[in-house]
Amino acid sequence: MFEENYENSTELWYEEKLELKRGVALKIKIENILCSHQSKFQKIEVFETKPFGRMLVIDGIVMLTEADEFCYHEMITHVGMCVHPKPENVLIIGGGDGGTVREVLKHPEVKKVDLCEIDEDVIRISKKFFPNVSKSLTDKKVNIKNKDGAEFVKDCKGKYDIIIVDSTDPIGPGKTLFEEEFYKNVYKSLKDDGIAIAQCESIFYHLDFISKTSEVLKKIFPIFSYYYTLIPTYPSGMIGFAFCSKKYHPIKDFKMEKVNRLKNLRYYNPETHKSSFSLPNFAKTFL
Amino acid sequence: MFEENYENSTELWYEEKLELKRGVALKIKIENILCSHQSKFQKIEVFETKPFGRMLVIDGIVMLTEADEFCYHEMITHVGMCVHPKPENVLIIGGGDGGTVREVLKHPEVKKVDLCEIDEDVIRISKKFFPNVSKSLTDKKVNIKNKDGAEFVKDCKGKYDIIIVDSTDPIGPGKTLFEEEFYKNVYKSLKDDGIAIAQCESIFYHLDFISKTSEVLKKIFPIFSYYYTLIPTYPSGMIGFAFCSKKYHPIKDFKMEKVNRLKNLRYYNPETHKSSFSLPNFAKTFL
Repeated sequence: MFEENYENSTELWYEEKLELKRGVALKIKIENILCSHQSKFQKIEVFETKPFGRMLVIDGIVMLTEADEFCYHEMITHVGMCVHPKPENVLIIGGGDGGTVREVLKHPEVKKVDLCEIDEDVIRISKKFFPNVSKSLTDKKVNIKNKDGAEFVKDCKGKYDIIIVDSTDPIGPGKTLFEEEFYKNVYKSLKDDGIAIAQCESIFYHLDFISKTSEVLKKIFPIFSYYYTLIPTYPSGMIGFAFCSKKYHPIKDFKMEKVNRLKNLRYYNPETHKSSFSLPNFAKTFL
Repeated sequence: MFEENYENSTELWYEEKLELKRGVALKIKIENILCSHQSKFQKIEVFETKPFGRMLVIDGIVMLTEADEFCYHEMITHVGMCVHPKPENVLIIGGGDGGTVREVLKHPEVKKVDLCEIDEDVIRISKKFFPNVSKSLTDKKVNIKNKDGAEFVKDCKGKYDIIIVDSTDPIGPGKTLFEEEFYKNVYKSLKDDGIAIAQCESIFYHLDFISKTSEVLKKIFPIFSYYYTLIPTYPSGMIGFAFCSKKYHPIKDFKMEKVNRLKNLRYYNPETHKSSFSLPNFAKTFL
């Protein structure tokens, strides 16, 4: 993942192996290696980067950087939360860094957040190196469960208003979080008017995957839509989300007045809520 | 701009020098160097890439790739053209590759397109290596002028319905195309209800520049707005455009029915028209 250049001084650059195989990769200058740890499940690394501040990398893939994590965490969270009229019980699958928890807790109606993160080391490392991302993990409304999300949702019938699948990519320990069986259990774990949101890759690099996933989700949920956020450190500079809902429509049931109550929003607003569902023609035909 | 890796076989990778200085760069695998030419004004290179097909690079900066040029060319063109009720006379400054001309000519009301490209070698090389991008450059409605755009607009009073500034970045020969004097002349070159569109960088990497440019443009044009397109091979995966107008509003005066007449659109549609003006909070405060 590194190359060293001794021409003037030692330089460290991060590159994603997976992307290099595709013939394209973002290269990010590293100032310092803060943590390199092999957990029971995956390799967890923290780098100090020049352009994006601290960066969390899992199995060679950028999970978040201090500079742009808000683009991802605000958009994976508030779109669903501002469509549901009263999201009191929320489940987050993955998301051990705590960024999604932080955003969920901005909603005053939330009574309980279950965080199901398989790898406790992700939580520990985020608490140590990303205080601004992880700060809400110690909130008394938050219950952390170090379990496999795919197993956990087998036994939560009708429990949640919102389920957010804040997973890694469909490889490694996150693989089961992209399978039909898993989404059927997510459906069952929601109340009758529940909403599920799941990370769903880039329209530029993963249209086949998005197309297959959307076919599965449309069979399970009466309302399905795809929306995206801009984020410069993810492949192609954007990432999408699956909006899966039993009752509420992402635009027609959007409650604009809920947005005004939210504090410290750097990305999300009523316009980005609505516009994030507008896709270029080439992507629409796959969805 | 290249590094060679002899571990298994020779590999060529393209990287942007300017971005490397920032500590972040897209790295793109090159299969073949098709052209490397020093013109009177700039270095023009054409590469066959693995992920994006052919790629045009000027002075070390990606101008376009076959795979994603439509994102840029459709959005720099149709947004203004579908707001103006009858764009008959169009001026394109820069844009020697021909992609913007191709999109402008999709509008049947267009009578004349003046293309003011300072460097005739860009046109020649695009015709040779990018037939699908350059194909409309030989259309009888198109008049090519190999002049400095900043000089050209000094003498076009009230002539154009639409002016599209399809420039390189604010360095090199394109530098004057980002100055106040230039935009004042663009204003004068438009008819009383004219619209100017100009390439205007990324909200993630160039907010200071965008902020300064928007201040200048707001002083000159009664209606100013900023919109963007997704494009994976530009820094941060997006690029913005300045929408500068004497009379028509980009949303209120948008003519949806004009979109239906346009053929072969892969990005632009009524939803992307409107949603491209919605910006994240962090960017809105700079505009």
